[in-house]
Parts: sequence; C-alpha cells; structure tokens
Amino acid sequence: MRKNKIISEKYIIHKYLRNLHYNKIETFNFKNDAAYIKVPKNKQLVVTNDTILESTDFFKNDPPESIANKIVTCNLSDISSMGASPYAYTLSLCLPGKITDTWLTKFTKKLKILQKKYNFFLIGGDLSKSNKIIISSNFFGFVSKGKILNRTSAKVNDDIWVTGNLGESSIGLAIRKKKIRVNNIIKKYFLSKYLFPRHCFIGDKIVNLATSAIDMSDGFYGDLENLINEKKIGASINSSLIPFSFKTKQLIVNNIINFNYLLTAGDDYELLFTAQSRNSSTISRMAINNNIKITKVGKIIDKKGLFLDGKKIQINNKSFQHFF
Amino acid sequence: MRKNKIISEKYIIHKYLRNLHYNKIETFNFKNDAAYIKVPKNKQLVVTNDTILESTDFFKNDPPESIANKIVTCNLSDISSMGASPYAYTLSLCLPGKITDTWLTKFTKKLKILQKKYNFFLIGGDLSKSNKIIISSNFFGFVSKGKILNRTSAKVNDDIWVTGNLGESSIGLAIRKKKIRVNNIIKKYFLSKYLFPRHCFIGDKIVNLATSAIDMSDGFYGDLENLINEKKIGASINSSLIPFSFKTKQLIVNNIINFNYLLTAGDDYELLFTAQSRNSSTISRMAINNNIKITKVGKIIDKKGLFLDGKKIQINNKSFQHFF
Repeated sequence: MRKNKIISEKYIIHKYLRNLHYNKIETFNFKNDAAYIKVPKNKQLVVTNDTILESTDFFKNDPPESIANKIVTCNLSDISSMGASPYAYTLSLCLPGKITDTWLTKFTKKLKILQKKYNFFLIGGDLSKSNKIIISSNFFGFVSKGKILNRTSAKVNDDIWVTGNLGESSIGLAIRKKKIRVNNIIKKYFLSKYLFPRHCFIGDKIVNLATSAIDMSDGFYGDLENLINEKKIGASINSSLIPFSFKTKQLIVNNIINFNYLLTAGDDYELLFTAQSRNSSTISRMAINNNIKITKVGKIIDKKGLFLDGKKIQINNKSFQHFF
Repeated sequence: MRKNKIISEKYIIHKYLRNLHYNKIETFNFKNDAAYIKVPKNKQLVVTNDTILESTDFFKNDPPESIANKIVTCNLSDISSMGASPYAYTLSLCLPGKITDTWLTKFTKKLKILQKKYNFFLIGGDLSKSNKIIISSNFFGFVSKGKILNRTSAKVNDDIWVTGNLGESSIGLAIRKKKIRVNNIIKKYFLSKYLFPRHCFIGDKIVNLATSAIDMSDGFYGDLENLINEKKIGASINSSLIPFSFKTKQLIVNNIINFNYLLTAGDDYELLFTAQSRNSSTISRMAINNNIKITKVGKIIDKKGLFLDGKKIQINNKSFQHFF
C-alpha cells in the first residue's frame, strides 16, 4: 500500500469499479453520461433505493467487506420482497480522502463475490469526497409481468410465514455496542450475523404462492403491521412459533436478551409473507429445495390489530425508525 | 414553524414527499418496498446517478431551492446528453436531525416546480439522518430505440457545437468564495447562475442530428477531451467563437477572471456535441425554435489533440475532479 498517494476519481473507477461492470453493453464501460437498461419482454422492472451511513448503519472500523455486504443486502432484500430477481445496481460512493487501496480492494472484492452469487452487475454511479463513508445504491430487478408482490393484498385466513431466524443481527449489534456480555463463541456467532446479514432470496419463487410480502428490515412487529394497517384485518401470532436459533433461545431463557426487543429490532432481511392455506405444502417444499428455513407463525384474522397468543398488543417502538 | 418538533421519516414522507409522486401507479404511493418502471414500446430506458454534498457541491446556508435545483439539474443534464427525455427519479436524502419544516417546504416546492416544468415524478427513495446534507439521486429517462447519444462517435470534419454561455456558474462560485470582487449588479447576476444553473434540455431533439454528445458538468476542455480521447481524432477550436455572455466578456477584458479558468471550471450543464456539417442549418433552426443559444466553435480534425486557434494546448487541470 502506497502512502500519501492521491486517489482520484478516475483511479478508483479504472482500478476498482471497472471490474464490476462485466463489460455489459448497458454500461458503456462507464464512458458515457448515463447507462441504459434492457428490460426483457414479459418482465417488469423494479427499482429500490437504500443508503447506509457510517456511525448510523455501520461503524467506522467495520470491515470493508461488511459494508459492501450491507449495501447489497438491504437493497436485494427489497428486490426479493417485490418478487423480483436482481439485474443491476448503481453505486454512489461518498468516501473520505484518506481512503486506502486496501479498503477499496476489500470492498470491491466483496461486491464482486456478491454480484457473482446473485447474478447482477454494476451499471453506473458517482464518486464524492466526504468526511464519513456514505453509500447510496439503486438496485434494479425483474419480475414476471403482473406478478409484483405488494404489502396490501393479505386476506383473512391467509397463513403468515417468516423465513430464517429473527433477531440475530440485532443481538450482534447489542454485543457490538457492549450492551450485553456473552462468551467468545456466542459473541463471534452473533457479530458475524450483524456484520454479514443475508437477505432471503426466495421472493421470485413465491410470486405465484404469496398474497403479500415484505422484508423485515424494520423489525417483525413493524413490518407485520405494514401488511395489515390499511385494511380491516389483523394478525394473530403464536409466540411459540416465532423462529429463533438455539443460541438466541438460550439468551432469552437466561434473560440476557429481551424477547420483545428481538421483534422490534431491524436488519433481519428475512421475508414476512402471507399465503392461502392450500399453498402450505408447496411453500414448505420450495423452502426445502432452496435450503431455506421457513415457519408459519400465525394467521390473518378479521379483527383489526396485532394479537400475540390471543392478546392484543400495543408496541410503542414497533419498528426501527431511521430518522428521529 | 414548530420548534423542537420531532421530524420523523414517516412525517417527511407523508407531509412532503407524497406530494411529489403524483399518485403514479408505479410508486405504490410509497407503500411498497420498491417501485416499478414502465418502459413504453420503442423506447430505451436510460439511468444516471449524481450525488451532491454540503460543503463540496453547495454551501450549508444556500437556499433550499438552490439545493433542489442542483440535484435535479446535474442529473437532467446527463439525461439530456444521452438524447433522452426525463421520466422519473429516486431521491436519497441524508438530512441533519435539526432540519426544519421551512427548509423541507422550500426544498420540495422547488422540486415540484421542476417536476412540472420538465415532466417527471418522484418514484421512490430513502431518508437518513446525517450531520451534513447529502443528496443522491438516480434519474430515469426515455430515448427512442437505437438513438442513445454517446461520447465516442465523433468523426473527422464534424462541427463542434456548444449550447448557452460558458463559465457563468463558475464565476458565481468565485464570487461566493470571495475570490473575485465585482459590483452588486454583476454579483447578483452570477450568484444566481451559480445557485440556479439550468441544464440544456435539447438532448432529445438532437438524436437524429448529433454524432456524439456530452454535458459540460466537468468543464469545456475536460469534456471536449472526453469526446476525442479514445480515437485518432482531435478538436480544433476557434477561441473567438467560444460563447460568453456580455457580462463575462467584461470580466475577462478587465482581467478580473481568467479565460482559461472559465474553460476548465465545471457545472455549466450546457451541451457539447458534434454533428455533420450538412445538419448545420437544421440545428440552428431547432435552437431558435427552442429559444436556445447555440454556437459552432470548431471542428473535429484528423490530428490527435486539442488545438486552440491552431496551437496545440496542454491543460493540466482539464476538468473539475470531484475526488482528490
């Protein structure tokens, strides 16, 4: 690593970002003012935008690989929850002037790994100098025409499903902030869940099965309420069915972490969706085929509100608010 | 204006940003995880991304209307230079916690005026809290299939055209930074050019006339070089033809501002394009019909390099580098 080297915009684009456009014709090799997007016939184009900031969404000294993972995960999670599969993304990088080649190498290497894994490429972007690292990204995905999943079509008697285990990333954050103390093995496990969360990628596989879907970036309660809050319907949840890992259950039992905290904390990037009961076995099979844990946690009911084990609940901090 | 009011994400979306989506079906009224984009038949979708930062691209106390104008102008300028007309945009707003209703009202009011003027709408976005104001936007536009303008198709003997007057915004910046002193009338004129630059919107009207195009966000020399730098061609420019306003010419004559500074300074958002000579009169007519000043400043030649009045020039700071 050279010290005091002037890292210019052109240098970063040439040395690091050009590796990420795969010579796709749409990108003009980053030599035009803009890029274009080719939408296949019978597909709809979906777009989402998420931004992550140093000190808010990650810590200054978090590994560059983790920061790359976060900007991709929060966006792909939205793409998946719309029933779409990834296509491409733009990247607005605001970086401190003292950014190093080491940082850029690790950051873009991780992006490349994720691009390969989920099949998308960098289509364009912008570079700026700032005091803190701020990364904004627009992700594009394709979904079969007329099949976009939304938040407002849940019906009474639909099953409520969640993927994966809840609260893992938020426990990692609590450990990172030294709010809870655990042994080193537990610490390592949850820190990795915080630093490298994964989105649930099965959105495009449930477009014919789900009646509504959302990703749990804002917490189980908050996002569940988003599925029911504009209609005269409610959700009845069986608390014993809410999926936690064995390690999380141990922390709950030992009063190290609070059950409700886990359901209001964000950044799980798992999917929460509703589906008719007749699709139940098809959904279970699809999950097994994709090596995804999936759990039916309750039902949509014809009574307004959120009910946990039959009791109506009032949660003050329903979801994580980015801005307050 | 209420003081100490908690301005939440939901409040900003509900009170200010919902005014900007025009109830377009693509936006799901900002109630879904993502939006979708409808591409008309025979059109190609173009995407660009620009980010502006407090202290770099604008000053902390610049009017909110000016900040709104800048994020729109720099992006629409790219859309125009591709030969496209605007369609929609996403907005990632990083705002300080102490942002006021007054600021948000002025900012979004200006966005609405520009949306109406150029016919586009807000399709989605993201809100975050930050110390400084940082705004990133992706703009989408449509261009007839196969008609995208690019930077690499200029041919020997093509005319070189520029729109508008060069350097106005950069003089405003020099005044704003107190690097030059002028009387109040001149000051007001150029400050307004700095605070409220306009992009040249005729890109979609020259797709059948131009051989290549670029917007001059990075300065005349820098962007001109982008049009010729990967081929065995050069540009011959007649310095007396470079368009300046009468007020700018006075500053040059009085040695208040340097001629070369004006050609390396950025943020003009005028178009620089090349076209065959046989299209000359059509281009002039189109400009008159659109009330646009347009000037033929030189020719593409078969000798590599940039020539001003026949002399090859070496410019060290060819263009404004966002990152250094």
